[in-house]
Amino acid sequence: MGGDDAVVQAARVSYGAGTKTVRDDRGLIRYLLSHNHTTPFEMAEIKLHVKMPIFVARQWIRHRTASVNEYSARYSILDKEYYVPSREAIAAQSTSNRQGRGEALGEVEQSEVIQRITSGAEDAYRNYLSLLNSGDDGGSGDPSKLGLTRELARSVLPVSYYTQWYWKVNLHNLMRFLQLRMDKHAQWEIRQYALKIAEIVRLWTPHTYEAFSDYQLGRLELSIAAAAVVRGWLRGELISQEESGLSKREWIELSRSMGRPECED
Amino acid sequence: MGGDDAVVQAARVSYGAGTKTVRDDRGLIRYLLSHNHTTPFEMAEIKLHVKMPIFVARQWIRHRTASVNEYSARYSILDKEYYVPSREAIAAQSTSNRQGRGEALGEVEQSEVIQRITSGAEDAYRNYLSLLNSGDDGGSGDPSKLGLTRELARSVLPVSYYTQWYWKVNLHNLMRFLQLRMDKHAQWEIRQYALKIAEIVRLWTPHTYEAFSDYQLGRLELSIAAAAVVRGWLRGELISQEESGLSKREWIELSRSMGRPECED
Amino acid sequence: MGGDDAVVQAARVSYGAGTKTVRDDRGLIRYLLSHNHTTPFEMAEIKLHVKMPIFVARQWIRHRTASVNEYSARYSILDKEYYVPSREAIAAQSTSNRQGRGEALGEVEQSEVIQRITSGAEDAYRNYLSLLNSGDDGGSGDPSKLGLTRELARSVLPVSYYTQWYWKVNLHNLMRFLQLRMDKHAQWEIRQYALKIAEIVRLWTPHTYEAFSDYQLGRLELSIAAAAVVRGWLRGELISQEESGLSKREWIELSRSMGRPECED
Amino acid sequence: MGGDDAVVQAARVSYGAGTKTVRDDRGLIRYLLSHNHTTPFEMAEIKLHVKMPIFVARQWIRHRTASVNEYSARYSILDKEYYVPSREAIAAQSTSNRQGRGEALGEVEQSEVIQRITSGAEDAYRNYLSLLNSGDDGGSGDPSKLGLTRELARSVLPVSYYTQWYWKVNLHNLMRFLQLRMDKHAQWEIRQYALKIAEIVRLWTPHTYEAFSDYQLGRLELSIAAAAVVRGWLRGELISQEESGLSKREWIELSRSMGRPECED
Repeated sequence: MGGDDAVVQAARVSYGAGTKTVRDDRGLIRYLLSHNHTTPFEMAEIKLHVKMPIFVARQWIRHRTASVNEYSARYSILDKEYYVPSREAIAAQSTSNRQGRGEALGEVEQSEVIQRITSGAEDAYRNYLSLLNSGDDGGSGDPSKLGLTRELARSVLPVSYYTQWYWKVNLHNLMRFLQLRMDKHAQWEIRQYALKIAEIVRLWTPHTYEAFSDYQLGRLELSIAAAAVVRGWLRGELISQEESGLSKREWIELSRSMGRPECED
Repeated sequence: MGGDDAVVQAARVSYGAGTKTVRDDRGLIRYLLSHNHTTPFEMAEIKLHVKMPIFVARQWIRHRTASVNEYSARYSILDKEYYVPSREAIAAQSTSNRQGRGEALGEVEQSEVIQRITSGAEDAYRNYLSLLNSGDDGGSGDPSKLGLTRELARSVLPVSYYTQWYWKVNLHNLMRFLQLRMDKHAQWEIRQYALKIAEIVRLWTPHTYEAFSDYQLGRLELSIAAAAVVRGWLRGELISQEESGLSKREWIELSRSMGRPECED
Repeated sequence: MGGDDAVVQAARVSYGAGTKTVRDDRGLIRYLLSHNHTTPFEMAEIKLHVKMPIFVARQWIRHRTASVNEYSARYSILDKEYYVPSREAIAAQSTSNRQGRGEALGEVEQSEVIQRITSGAEDAYRNYLSLLNSGDDGGSGDPSKLGLTRELARSVLPVSYYTQWYWKVNLHNLMRFLQLRMDKHAQWEIRQYALKIAEIVRLWTPHTYEAFSDYQLGRLELSIAAAAVVRGWLRGELISQEESGLSKREWIELSRSMGRPECED
Repeated sequence: MGGDDAVVQAARVSYGAGTKTVRDDRGLIRYLLSHNHTTPFEMAEIKLHVKMPIFVARQWIRHRTASVNEYSARYSILDKEYYVPSREAIAAQSTSNRQGRGEALGEVEQSEVIQRITSGAEDAYRNYLSLLNSGDDGGSGDPSKLGLTRELARSVLPVSYYTQWYWKVNLHNLMRFLQLRMDKHAQWEIRQYALKIAEIVRLWTPHTYEAFSDYQLGRLELSIAAAAVVRGWLRGELISQEESGLSKREWIELSRSMGRPECED
């Protein structure tokens, strides 16, 4: 629903006859986004049909300003579809980041991870089926089935199992989703979804996506103290971390982002 | 964006393969709405361009789950457009309802109301223009103009003046708007907007609108005590208001809605 | 934050000096709730610390108008705590309701269900630990551990495992949660949480809870057609389902709720 | 409800046992805010009773994620209280900013503005009273009163008239309000409210307010292109606006904020 044109149309109603100067659509969109005038971006809306592992769905649903209709495992049997990470995704716990992924595991360990995740998921599905009615797998008549209600039987399935939903969201809230989930701190799996959706947004609303890339995605945010340090550097001053008012972590981040790795120590 | 079909599509993803029995779209929509399964109705979305008096806009904006871009009187001069009630809308304060409208005024009083509202609005607009820049009315060069910033000059305009906005809302939240604003307790002016929008919804999503009319708009809500009274009546019992557990007001409301005015006393 | 008194205070600001007649707090709250004046109930707020199985958390989080901070299995190891239904909760799939629970299973089947759910959860946890770092269980140094990042290792855990969060919600939205989750169509497990929270609300805001019980929880909703049938019955008319305009299902529901089971056929 | 401690408590549940390193409360809050981890700030909540001109209320209400109960001019008569700007607030339209305030008007013009706004408000109130019932001003019995319903009579009052409401909001959304409304692009009148509320927040949640000041309020946001220019400057390069990829406006903004006014030309 809508696109770059709907954003522009909505922004222009605010300005009314006041917009005497002709600013082209692309320029207006860039102005809006760089100045955090976000409401016009609510005028475009998109609906996606997505299938993802339950642990990804649990992160995704935290974005509250969207509409969702999800497949219900109370009504229907879940298919035997589960997520097994590819080799490139199998890594150790990060040593510097408590919530992140670090070095890749060795090939032997990777194979072992794949094997254990797979066999856990297979065992769980067998357990799931054995709890259900014999009619639920097409009527095997298997007497070892317990006939438990679906809503309880599904409790044995791991969060690697796939669910699916319709997800409807406006462009403004979608950009907030992308900003958080394309970020390197997001879990690798949800980042893959975000990157794919970003491609869709780029095709759907090219001006908005370009402005989003320039002003939001790659944006550098400088605190008052950090900006003061940069101004000092530009005047040729030598500044130590202690003088800067920045924490050690902030000092390193600033030095790197400003291309001054030599300042790190 | 979407319509009855999008509602049905979203509901069916919830049921998954579980929907073995074929239920037609109309029946499914009626089932969803009568059982308060509201999320599928979020999948249809509509955008309206509306012009209304400021006092109506102030009631309208209380519906928070919508997207709005409004004309800005900080950017642009407001046109000389204000609301004057038609004769049918000019009534006295209700004697029974502190927030409502009662008997129509006499013709003489109606004429006087129209005259006073009109002259107040005209005076205010003259005042508005006189506070602004001489350039703001097309460059009259009138030296009596004070050159005040637009955002302050507009403070003299009454709430009868028109503003306008784009309003985008999903079907679920639109029905809640309609239910509150088509109600006889809503102010007459906003009710006219709601009635007009209801016609649009009827054309846009006919099954949903029909179900909405049957199950939501005309719905009778019986409290536990009220339902007990009706069951007693059906068994042929005589019940007094005191025995009923209902307040006097509730007793009268129930008697009327059940077609038993003789019970009122 | 706040309580019945905050609801009353907020309602009174709307009325301003207009509330000449003194209505007591209880009466005002009952009036507000029975007339769907919901905004004053947003003025009271509560925060709960809750622990629940992941499959319950997934239903709970669908209530979007609340604030949540959840335990993160990316940061920390999940404890070996999982949900095993008690015997009273172990039932077959409902034959009349595709999403519900029907007859209790036999004792032998119940024991078998408990055993299979338990052993599935135990196996999964063993698998989980074996994927993690050897340091993650207190430094066993066990060389069979694969050192996988926590955020991936957790993918093998079933949705019966417990998570926990802080949940903060206002009284209005809490009542909507209760209405949906105390309902007999809600899954038994989340209903237990809703019932426990209802007790808390009754202690916290007794007038509001009483009004909620009377007007919302036990409320009977009659569609236009259903109300017409009841009025006909009260006039002593005989009405068939076909004449009523109600579906078979609606006809049965109405007959039962009005104490006329003999009408069912 | 809550404060800095509630923010910290909520953040710590996310980390679970994972927070082995002891980080003090102030440090944790600074980390959360500088890394846009906003959900813990939803755990503190505040309620304010505010009186403001209608035109300010119309800007304020655009912040949707809050609870509001407003005085109703349908129930009660509005008092004769209206906003007249003080001399310091009376300024011409900005020449550089279509929605802003520029140079102060001369003293003579200021006096004239005050006089015209005042007399407009007084005239409107006389008109308002004359439309109402004679009972509405204490029973004057004045026969020239027309007896119009309050909800229509109020339509003649200007947006300079005061309304009042209870406003309840969580700390996260309050900071977004402050960021937008303390900004120099916000209308002067609402900025005065924001500045006063900022003082309250500073007393209520001192750590959060300090972090908000450092990381959000005074924050400098550099687009990808702008950051590249700064890195170039730090390497001693000469860069022209044309080479920079920045628009003229962006180039000037960057030069000023980085303390390089000589680059402006």
